Amino acid sequence: MTDDFRLLSPRDLRLELDALYAEYIGCLDEERFEDWPDFFVEDCLYKIVPRENYERGLPLATWLCESRGYLKDRVVAIRKTSVYGPRLIRRMVSAIRILGWQGDVLAARVNYAAFETLPDELTRVFNVGQSHDKLVVVDGRLKFKEKICVFDSMLVPNSLIYPL
Amino acid sequence: MTDDFRLLSPRDLRLELDALYAEYIGCLDEERFEDWPDFFVEDCLYKIVPRENYERGLPLATWLCESRGYLKDRVVAIRKTSVYGPRLIRRMVSAIRILGWQGDVLAARVNYAAFETLPDELTRVFNVGQSHDKLVVVDGRLKFKEKICVFDSMLVPNSLIYPL
Amino acid sequence: MTDDFRLLSPRDLRLELDALYAEYIGCLDEERFEDWPDFFVEDCLYKIVPRENYERGLPLATWLCESRGYLKDRVVAIRKTSVYGPRLIRRMVSAIRILGWQGDVLAARVNYAAFETLPDELTRVFNVGQSHDKLVVVDGRLKFKEKICVFDSMLVPNSLIYPL
Repeated sequence: MTDDFRLLSPRDLRLELDALYAEYIGCLDEERFEDWPDFFVEDCLYKIVPRENYERGLPLATWLCESRGYLKDRVVAIRKTSVYGPRLIRRMVSAIRILGWQGDVLAARVNYAAFETLPDELTRVFNVGQSHDKLVVVDGRLKFKEKICVFDSMLVPNSLIYPL
Repeated sequence: MTDDFRLLSPRDLRLELDALYAEYIGCLDEERFEDWPDFFVEDCLYKIVPRENYERGLPLATWLCESRGYLKDRVVAIRKTSVYGPRLIRRMVSAIRILGWQGDVLAARVNYAAFETLPDELTRVFNVGQSHDKLVVVDGRLKFKEKICVFDSMLVPNSLIYPL
Repeated sequence: MTDDFRLLSPRDLRLELDALYAEYIGCLDEERFEDWPDFFVEDCLYKIVPRENYERGLPLATWLCESRGYLKDRVVAIRKTSVYGPRLIRRMVSAIRILGWQGDVLAARVNYAAFETLPDELTRVFNVGQSHDKLVVVDGRLKFKEKICVFDSMLVPNSLIYPL
């Protein structure tokens, strides 16, 4: 099946990515966190990192998950061990850019904005940035091998409870 | 013509929805409110409802219009009877998800963000959420049979003058 | 090559514009400003203008560049002569509307939102509006002949350093 995706025209590939990001966001916004690790391959890298650190090549990350197992641990933390107040996050994506295939790996970038709503407060901008993604085809589906959310702030959000 | 839409590939259907939401937003952002009811079928349901109420199945809605006639009444209210200060609303959508056809009805979801600008004030986030939509084909066009804007707040915006 | 674009189906043309806006945004967000003028033809018009002025036909613009040379001057100003503090801008687009071809010129509109992050501050909404665009095909690529960013505010942003 890998070949099928690699043979897609740029336009069709764009539509596949558009659908994938929509499903990804839907999973997170609807708080179906248990389904979230399934968007990744087992041997994956997921990071949330300030843009300054990313551009300078500094290793410090706000979140760092080095396999799908880590992602599952995160979900357990969200559901069971983390202590935090209720909040709603709404995510938007825009400007999908297909950088191309390198072997079996598709590189893409997408801008994102996340909005946070706390109880009895107005919605505010929570975190914006660009996701640097690498995808591979597994069982006929595009999955993330790498997803690095590079956010536009030197401040670490004090409430990064849920994934981006 | 119904069959034409139902026979569309998921990719083509995605593009049709993308175009439809763009036209819908353009109509509202440009304040062509008289054209707004024409995006709906006569026997329609349009609601704006807080997410908490929606998820708990509570009936209370911030806006409730149970037919296209109600939508037209809303437009009359906006144009003639409501008292409110000038404001500009800018809407964005993202993450269109096609849930599929059930008979003649297409279910879809889309995230939205609305930004409000009052005179001599900075633009701010006004309302974000997800629209739960059901569409049917009438005269070769997709129209809303149901559009429920579920917003991420327990606060009712104090100035929900225009549709979302 | 002009004919190729003009013969595209509305769906394919939508995907071409989607890709173009993504590249345009990527160029600006990643601060590759030297590449920015190349999105325009030599004889172009680029404006940033408050919506009220635009709708009333008032000539006053916040930015006015009447050729690609002016755009290059802007880039020189950003890189060398302007005095301003560091900031990050993240742009999103949504709701691409294709108004159609008039001769060789394609008219389109797209909503945009720009978010600004200053050092040690939270990200905030910077500027939202709609871009009124006219495009032509040059060497097999769509380029802007006219791009007018009509923003939803009567306040001129006090820090419009980078293009939109």
